Amino acid sequence: MTPTILLTQGDINGIGTEIILKAFAKLRRLKARLCAVGSMREFEFHRKRLDLPVALAEIAALDELDSVPRSALAILNVKHEAKTKFGQVRADAGDLAMKSVELAARLCLRDEAHAIVTAPIHKEAIAKAGWAFEGHTDFLAHLSNRRVQMLFADERSQLRVALATVHVPLAKVSERLSTQGIEEKIQTLHDALRRDFGIKTPRIAVLGLNPHASDGGIIGREEEELLKPTLKRLARRFRLKGPFAADGFFGAKLYRNFDATLAMYHDQALIPFKMLAFETGVNLTLGLPFVRTSPDHGVAFDIAGKGIANESSFIEATKLALKLAIARRAAQTRSRVLA
Amino acid sequence: MTPTILLTQGDINGIGTEIILKAFAKLRRLKARLCAVGSMREFEFHRKRLDLPVALAEIAALDELDSVPRSALAILNVKHEAKTKFGQVRADAGDLAMKSVELAARLCLRDEAHAIVTAPIHKEAIAKAGWAFEGHTDFLAHLSNRRVQMLFADERSQLRVALATVHVPLAKVSERLSTQGIEEKIQTLHDALRRDFGIKTPRIAVLGLNPHASDGGIIGREEEELLKPTLKRLARRFRLKGPFAADGFFGAKLYRNFDATLAMYHDQALIPFKMLAFETGVNLTLGLPFVRTSPDHGVAFDIAGKGIANESSFIEATKLALKLAIARRAAQTRSRVLA
Repeated sequence: MTPTILLTQGDINGIGTEIILKAFAKLRRLKARLCAVGSMREFEFHRKRLDLPVALAEIAALDELDSVPRSALAILNVKHEAKTKFGQVRADAGDLAMKSVELAARLCLRDEAHAIVTAPIHKEAIAKAGWAFEGHTDFLAHLSNRRVQMLFADERSQLRVALATVHVPLAKVSERLSTQGIEEKIQTLHDALRRDFGIKTPRIAVLGLNPHASDGGIIGREEEELLKPTLKRLARRFRLKGPFAADGFFGAKLYRNFDATLAMYHDQALIPFKMLAFETGVNLTLGLPFVRTSPDHGVAFDIAGKGIANESSFIEATKLALKLAIARRAAQTRSRVLA
Repeated sequence: MTPTILLTQGDINGIGTEIILKAFAKLRRLKARLCAVGSMREFEFHRKRLDLPVALAEIAALDELDSVPRSALAILNVKHEAKTKFGQVRADAGDLAMKSVELAARLCLRDEAHAIVTAPIHKEAIAKAGWAFEGHTDFLAHLSNRRVQMLFADERSQLRVALATVHVPLAKVSERLSTQGIEEKIQTLHDALRRDFGIKTPRIAVLGLNPHASDGGIIGREEEELLKPTLKRLARRFRLKGPFAADGFFGAKLYRNFDATLAMYHDQALIPFKMLAFETGVNLTLGLPFVRTSPDHGVAFDIAGKGIANESSFIEATKLALKLAIARRAAQTRSRVLA
């Protein structure tokens, strides 16, 4: 069966609507049923304003999807009051964005759809609208009642990198690291690589925290006291190597020898990721009961409504969502057969 | 006048001698007087063992350099007892390496030579030999009685990056940063860019410490409390921008808009540097009364004596040393004329 992929509109005052329309124009032949979730009226407004050659077809429920011709983008309409005000942080836009994500998630949880690709939302706008979430990741974790984790993936450069800590001040990173935390991250990563990427025994690299991975304990103690003992214990259950000195690891492209890499802090992962995948990188949320990907950029209020936004990352995110949805369904079929 | 560049042999049990010989074979036409400093006997041993087509000519003092034909590599011989034992950490080799560097530095301090390109030494070997220095940088700072700073330069990718902290455990980086320290780093960098690179008003980028450069103080306080006020104050004297979020800075190649970048910690600089300049990167010591460069790798004991070491980085280091020596002499001439 062809997977159904939902594209959530994101903040209507940013570039999300534009990149969905541009991406759809290039993705019509994708072997998936694509459906945008958001405001029909605002999709139509952006389409006209940017003069994009994409037909739109409003639907009220997913079972109408088959009646929409492949040349048109189906829009599952979300009721709201918001009107596009390019570049502005507005509560009504934040509210519409979150309602679209909520609807998409509920459809996936009911197994009516299989994957979500999210256009960017704006943190402040959703806070203004009274939603108590930082962004997509924690909202989806809450709706699904799962512990989740981000993965940054670039299929072209073969870099997939996860984070042991995310938005933590650099000085606090060391104290946030723990044996249990690292074990959980590796477990989630391992499971996702097996289930979503179809890799039987995933090879995972773990980076050190300190310069030169501490040079044997001379520059910091975390490698000797935390990372090495933890990895040694986990080596019975996972195919692990590390802790690697991060500079040499990326310089020598060692990530190509692994299915994924676990970095200790934000910039240790994001500096190399953005260098390798500036327009093609994709974010994934691991640990959800459905597939979720997103492009590797924000609302870009500074260029909103100008027609110059680049849809490459959104296209990559949609292609990867399809690949993962197919792999996940194949894994489910296998496990049913085995059971 | 043609600058004289000294090539110090480094640890004879590593790849240093091999890369000097290989590099010289490709640098014969360089408009510089090249002279190796080290053991004539061990140079000859490596040359024979690796069957390298380079003639050697022993000299006892630099004034004999003009009598050596351009096709031969002049070796300023250093007395010693060491014999090559590939891949071994030995005190005699450490001692020979340090004596070579000491002689080269004294010749530069007496203005008999103008630049040093150092082949790698081994920290443990020099410690075994009783030398109380961590490596080249602090040894040369001591001999010259100057405060120095490292710069990583890759002319091809246009990345030049200096470090606010070097071999500091990640958890201690924040407490090591200070207004005074950052001011000194920027001053040294600015002076070197003017004097050695011939850039009139150098543009310097400063990176933030935290993820997203703290997002306005939400993820850590160092940007708001230390970096922004410091940069604001220094902006009267220097052409500065920052603090930049490091991931986006490297992802968008913003370093190309600056003559140099100041990173806050080791891997923030060395991850992108090694990715961009894995075999062509050069290290420089700024602040010395002479030019010093070195290749961006270590003794590589694992491949010593096998003939497979790559001389690219040493060649780049030598070319850059010549460029800097010429720029520095031009600057000296200008200042003499002005005085």
